[in-house]
Amino acid sequence: MARHALKKRSRKAGLPPGTLVHIGERKTDVIKAVVLDYDEQNCSESVLTDYAQCIALRGKPTVTWVDIEGVHDIEALERMGHCFGLHPLVVEDILNTDQRPKIEDYGEYLYIVLRMLTNGSESGEISSEQVSLILGENFVLSFQEGAKGDVFEPVRTRIRNSKGQIRKLGADYLAYSLIDAVVDNYFIILEKTGERVELLEETLISDPGPETLRLIHSLKREMVYLRKSVWPLREVVSGMQRRDSILIRESTGFYLRDVYDHTIQVIDTIETFRDMLSGMLDIYLSSISNRTNAVMKVLTVIATIFIPLTWLAGVYGMNFKNMPELSWQYGYPAVWLAMLAIAAGMVVYFKKKKWW
Amino acid sequence: MARHALKKRSRKAGLPPGTLVHIGERKTDVIKAVVLDYDEQNCSESVLTDYAQCIALRGKPTVTWVDIEGVHDIEALERMGHCFGLHPLVVEDILNTDQRPKIEDYGEYLYIVLRMLTNGSESGEISSEQVSLILGENFVLSFQEGAKGDVFEPVRTRIRNSKGQIRKLGADYLAYSLIDAVVDNYFIILEKTGERVELLEETLISDPGPETLRLIHSLKREMVYLRKSVWPLREVVSGMQRRDSILIRESTGFYLRDVYDHTIQVIDTIETFRDMLSGMLDIYLSSISNRTNAVMKVLTVIATIFIPLTWLAGVYGMNFKNMPELSWQYGYPAVWLAMLAIAAGMVVYFKKKKWW
Amino acid sequence: MARHALKKRSRKAGLPPGTLVHIGERKTDVIKAVVLDYDEQNCSESVLTDYAQCIALRGKPTVTWVDIEGVHDIEALERMGHCFGLHPLVVEDILNTDQRPKIEDYGEYLYIVLRMLTNGSESGEISSEQVSLILGENFVLSFQEGAKGDVFEPVRTRIRNSKGQIRKLGADYLAYSLIDAVVDNYFIILEKTGERVELLEETLISDPGPETLRLIHSLKREMVYLRKSVWPLREVVSGMQRRDSILIRESTGFYLRDVYDHTIQVIDTIETFRDMLSGMLDIYLSSISNRTNAVMKVLTVIATIFIPLTWLAGVYGMNFKNMPELSWQYGYPAVWLAMLAIAAGMVVYFKKKKWW
Amino acid sequence: MARHALKKRSRKAGLPPGTLVHIGERKTDVIKAVVLDYDEQNCSESVLTDYAQCIALRGKPTVTWVDIEGVHDIEALERMGHCFGLHPLVVEDILNTDQRPKIEDYGEYLYIVLRMLTNGSESGEISSEQVSLILGENFVLSFQEGAKGDVFEPVRTRIRNSKGQIRKLGADYLAYSLIDAVVDNYFIILEKTGERVELLEETLISDPGPETLRLIHSLKREMVYLRKSVWPLREVVSGMQRRDSILIRESTGFYLRDVYDHTIQVIDTIETFRDMLSGMLDIYLSSISNRTNAVMKVLTVIATIFIPLTWLAGVYGMNFKNMPELSWQYGYPAVWLAMLAIAAGMVVYFKKKKWW
Amino acid sequence: MARHALKKRSRKAGLPPGTLVHIGERKTDVIKAVVLDYDEQNCSESVLTDYAQCIALRGKPTVTWVDIEGVHDIEALERMGHCFGLHPLVVEDILNTDQRPKIEDYGEYLYIVLRMLTNGSESGEISSEQVSLILGENFVLSFQEGAKGDVFEPVRTRIRNSKGQIRKLGADYLAYSLIDAVVDNYFIILEKTGERVELLEETLISDPGPETLRLIHSLKREMVYLRKSVWPLREVVSGMQRRDSILIRESTGFYLRDVYDHTIQVIDTIETFRDMLSGMLDIYLSSISNRTNAVMKVLTVIATIFIPLTWLAGVYGMNFKNMPELSWQYGYPAVWLAMLAIAAGMVVYFKKKKWW
Repeated sequence: MARHALKKRSRKAGLPPGTLVHIGERKTDVIKAVVLDYDEQNCSESVLTDYAQCIALRGKPTVTWVDIEGVHDIEALERMGHCFGLHPLVVEDILNTDQRPKIEDYGEYLYIVLRMLTNGSESGEISSEQVSLILGENFVLSFQEGAKGDVFEPVRTRIRNSKGQIRKLGADYLAYSLIDAVVDNYFIILEKTGERVELLEETLISDPGPETLRLIHSLKREMVYLRKSVWPLREVVSGMQRRDSILIRESTGFYLRDVYDHTIQVIDTIETFRDMLSGMLDIYLSSISNRTNAVMKVLTVIATIFIPLTWLAGVYGMNFKNMPELSWQYGYPAVWLAMLAIAAGMVVYFKKKKWW
Repeated sequence: MARHALKKRSRKAGLPPGTLVHIGERKTDVIKAVVLDYDEQNCSESVLTDYAQCIALRGKPTVTWVDIEGVHDIEALERMGHCFGLHPLVVEDILNTDQRPKIEDYGEYLYIVLRMLTNGSESGEISSEQVSLILGENFVLSFQEGAKGDVFEPVRTRIRNSKGQIRKLGADYLAYSLIDAVVDNYFIILEKTGERVELLEETLISDPGPETLRLIHSLKREMVYLRKSVWPLREVVSGMQRRDSILIRESTGFYLRDVYDHTIQVIDTIETFRDMLSGMLDIYLSSISNRTNAVMKVLTVIATIFIPLTWLAGVYGMNFKNMPELSWQYGYPAVWLAMLAIAAGMVVYFKKKKWW
Repeated sequence: MARHALKKRSRKAGLPPGTLVHIGERKTDVIKAVVLDYDEQNCSESVLTDYAQCIALRGKPTVTWVDIEGVHDIEALERMGHCFGLHPLVVEDILNTDQRPKIEDYGEYLYIVLRMLTNGSESGEISSEQVSLILGENFVLSFQEGAKGDVFEPVRTRIRNSKGQIRKLGADYLAYSLIDAVVDNYFIILEKTGERVELLEETLISDPGPETLRLIHSLKREMVYLRKSVWPLREVVSGMQRRDSILIRESTGFYLRDVYDHTIQVIDTIETFRDMLSGMLDIYLSSISNRTNAVMKVLTVIATIFIPLTWLAGVYGMNFKNMPELSWQYGYPAVWLAMLAIAAGMVVYFKKKKWW
Repeated sequence: MARHALKKRSRKAGLPPGTLVHIGERKTDVIKAVVLDYDEQNCSESVLTDYAQCIALRGKPTVTWVDIEGVHDIEALERMGHCFGLHPLVVEDILNTDQRPKIEDYGEYLYIVLRMLTNGSESGEISSEQVSLILGENFVLSFQEGAKGDVFEPVRTRIRNSKGQIRKLGADYLAYSLIDAVVDNYFIILEKTGERVELLEETLISDPGPETLRLIHSLKREMVYLRKSVWPLREVVSGMQRRDSILIRESTGFYLRDVYDHTIQVIDTIETFRDMLSGMLDIYLSSISNRTNAVMKVLTVIATIFIPLTWLAGVYGMNFKNMPELSWQYGYPAVWLAMLAIAAGMVVYFKKKKWW
Repeated sequence: MARHALKKRSRKAGLPPGTLVHIGERKTDVIKAVVLDYDEQNCSESVLTDYAQCIALRGKPTVTWVDIEGVHDIEALERMGHCFGLHPLVVEDILNTDQRPKIEDYGEYLYIVLRMLTNGSESGEISSEQVSLILGENFVLSFQEGAKGDVFEPVRTRIRNSKGQIRKLGADYLAYSLIDAVVDNYFIILEKTGERVELLEETLISDPGPETLRLIHSLKREMVYLRKSVWPLREVVSGMQRRDSILIRESTGFYLRDVYDHTIQVIDTIETFRDMLSGMLDIYLSSISNRTNAVMKVLTVIATIFIPLTWLAGVYGMNFKNMPELSWQYGYPAVWLAMLAIAAGMVVYFKKKKWW
């Protein structure tokens, strides 16, 4: 749960359940409600302006899909909820845009929460918004926060063009298609994340620095966030499969199994990224310590060679009256030779020890 | 289990089960028992002074809520227990304020233990007190330790003002409302904790020190404590949902699922904080080691440059009779030049190796 | 499994099952068998001297409790086993005092193994001994190794004084009371351990040393040992609850649930201690590395200041004929000034970098 | 999921389910479809050129095995799918060569996905390709990506030569044989990996370097990849065993249990390699730190011996007028003696401390 | 799976299932097959020379135990398998001596695989060999690799001497006795391992070195190997208990529960050793780092004391014409005093900081 959501959520404490408060950022100004009404032959599209029109939408034999963008207008949602007979707690959850993916069976309809992922434009950081689906007998309601992008557009196009079998199948297949659209979108997000991970890996080898560490940690945290957004989806989809709700036809089962597989693949990929980032952390830390060791060795080699030489020079810099070596003809060159010999011996020793 | 509780608890060893000993700190002086008696039309409020009045409260068709603050008066609780037909072990558990959240089915009533969280006023450290609920057919008993704050006040207000549907529904809905009030309070606590974590994160970047380490560890320990207080609540709530007790109506199920979701969100947030703190520990340790490396490098650079120079100065400080260089016209400037050349060479080498 | 037990155990290899060998240290010299025979009205106490008397104890309508201290007398136990119809494997297990807590249903009786904890007198190190219980229809046999302390004394007193309801209830309640006595004793042990952990925590802050590390590790190992002794008890107690053995009356179920809760609390406390010790390990290691860093910094500061100064002194210690500075009037004070300037510059730099 | 697959996969987002897109690298140019048709007496072999011939293959009493190599020809696969009545999602999965091993029951046929492992020729790095099996009543379809090697050749030979009982048993035994061939191949791959691990272990002892670290990490990542490819196979095989599909005869159960055991052995071996690599990582890090310590010690010993000596030489290099030692007859040798004594003392001290 | 086994195993790839290849080292030259035939009254012992004699062994009312040592003679085993009606996969598994412990129900007989542990004579390193048991209605076949030691000898002696109840009970009790003999042997192995762990612990305190690290890691790896050999045995034994095979009488259940307990004890002990070794690793690493710190401190103390002193000596070694101190009467002693004062100050400072 993000900080800002926590703040709003904590302000709700003490209010009776079902009290409607919008939790989350207001991501769009206008609320748009697009109605698609179709069966195999016909398909009509309209924009809902007055929520009293909802009544007319119920009980039709055709499949009706109402897609609402923007969930901050409490009153509109409340009226809509009344009209479709939604439980107050469902409307409350649609407004609280910090739910985990979940599925709830209310008998006459299923309430499904998903999280749609989006990439921040520059930094590529991942954020998510809540998508709520209501699957009734002949209708699907979808609620998006409406930030940017619309992953449902391809589904809409398929309905309009009667592409695939979407027009032949019922509301449950529509719900599946919307879930599938959300999951498909994960792959796009993951691909971008993969690029960032690879870029980081290259930086790690070419020029690791404290910034690299910060980036590894921030990506790791993103992976944890992603995992939390996607992991419960497994149970949602397998819950839909297992459920003996009359709302889900048997034939849709195969498709749900397919989207389940995709979810597993997404989770697998996230896990792989996490493993890679953990490995990168290890490599970073050990490269830092390698660098320290390299610095260390230079210090040792230089210091160990010159300290004895300096001492030798110091000895012959003493002012004793009686130092016979000082008067020797070749005393000075002899000291030079001794110094060179010591230095050479050290170097050979270090080479042998592979410290150089 | 806290130390002081352990001490009291260990003193109880050897006493027969059901022996009533108050374990915990006495948090309030006066014991207050407020009785709320309501149905859809009426609502009366009174303060219980004589525990013999309890008898009169049983068997009414209205919903009766007795809220007791302060659990150190063993005798009063014992009489109350007798009056409502509570098992001696239940009374014992109400007195031992170090229980984990749990639910126990005694046939005629359910015994539910929750932990309410409070923030220490200055340090913001989290502590908890025990809230015991007894849900009978037409009554709810609630026992608080009565330290500070009263998370049940909003529920009381809703009953008085007949806000929401609380007056229309039974004792099980009241019990749910009390649990919900406790869980809602968690969000307030978590928000404050979130602030502390963020503050710590800023300190970690601006000015990390041993104190930061201590704070990270203390916050981590708090998260473990929190987790232990909240985690079993999941099972309590899902236990209430699953239970085919006649005490819980089916319609309350939806509300319990809602509070279950909130509990999951609380646990999720705690986990996120734990992850953040673990990451901060990593960053702290690596920033400390970075600092050591920086110190190291300066030492190496300074030492490695000046050690050979000092040796060179030492050589020409020797007192050999026969040192031709000493008499050369430009011997002295030549040595200076040599020294500058060595130093410059080193600096270039270090720059190339990126050690500077 | 402790080393000495492993040694004895391995010597048993190859013998047929049911071969009776005492594994463990002989902890008492005399074997004491105290018989308590009671119902609601009467209570008689006697000491068993001849194991043939056992026969007389069976089949009585009263509850009979035979408490045996010392399990190294193989022959006596064998005769006792015959008399109460115990399976040879049960007698074998009573003798092998290194069992994990377990419950085994032999139809006519339940065999329960517990571990009783004791504190070493000086060091406070925790050791454990095996307590075996046989719960038959109207009798309970208890076998202790008989080292020191007797946690069953309070139970005996309650029977003698008819305190609580112990005299009114059957053998299963007696068995519960004995288990409860063992679990209650854990709290006493844990309190002492808590004191040791706190003491260690203080030492960690005031004066950490290699000894601290050793103590942390030894306490951690004790916690692992404790956990192994207590953890399986959960299953033993919940096994007794679930079991539809006719030996356990329904009314005892509440009490078993209570002792189960206590076991969970004990395990929780052990886990908390483990967490604390792990945190202390982290703090210890990081305080050691902090200390190294502190030492490091002093070295760096002193060395980095004086190495250039020494070089400067070396330069003017050279013996070149032609060194004009040496003859300058203020050459010497100028060098002193230069040295002070370099030192001051360094100090300022270090202060700025916060290395001092 | 590999990067290139992620890229292709993300491009598929928005297309209706069952849309056929080949995901993976095109590993072969020609698509080869070999048909083996056999019963106990006869065995005929042909190459499928026109996919309309498929119709003729259905409904025969003999066992028909169609082995397709190359899965990038979407159209051919689509026609084949139509002909054998495959669900569009199955054909889609055959094309998406990045599936995890799985088994799906479509009533009339089972769809099984396996991963076949191959070693990169030079580096020995492990890659995998997807093998899809369709087990129908009298037929088996197998789809390989067709990179290199053909693990099915031995099975084909056995059919041709009527070796073993393969000709006597049905399509389910054939499917088992193919799975067994894939699992047998794992052992070959693992043997090569084992060689690489051993080689790395030797390098670790003889000449550890940053390259060793990189290799350990890359092998660890390969093990994770391997594990992901093999682990779900357990469930696939045990799923086939448990399944009460009429497609799998009881007698095949024993063989499936055998292949299950092999899978467990493969996973065990992978785990062993992972453990070995983790141990190697520990040894690498500690050998690096040992090396630093060794370097450290030399520095300490040399510096600690010569620093006091240099100071002593410095003292007698001072130019004070009044330094009586300088005029002493044996001043100079005395200083030498003092220096030797100090050096010897240090050496003895270090030897005693075992720092040398 | 060991490397050599992997090599042999990978060579088997492609052969049809049931192909008999011996995998493992040939551990004995002659194959010995000892037949024990007994009932309560009689017991005859013979050596099987011709495997056609097997036929005569079947269908007798007495219990027949055929103990085969050496499993590399493929032909002999094949004929034996035919004679006792064993499935080809069972014979294959007997030959592949790298199985994990497992139990397989073939209806008419149970196939049980165990691993017997042996200690390498000098190093004490643990290796294991495979023991296969076939439990039929009136017969038990046991297959050992026949390296060294014979843990079945005590069982044989008990049968010959009619010790215990082994002669009175059936083939299932015999099978239990053999499993028990194998498990009993584990305790002997564990005792030796315990000695090695203790020895290592002492070395760790008295004289830790790189060899100690290597030993810790090798023991840890042995523990992992042990665990893998013993862990699945739990399921084997509990599988025998649960199994409603007519081959296992109810009375044997108690004995199986006993051997199950022993298995748990073995696993517990292995876990304890692992924990101890992990703790030793921590202590080793921290003792190494303590040593580095100690070395560090000596360097710091010596260097920090002498570096300023050397500088001071250098100052008065300068050759400036105009250095008034040099001519002072007590200049030289004054410098000595200053040096002593500086050194003493440093020592006091270090003492206070507890760095000495």
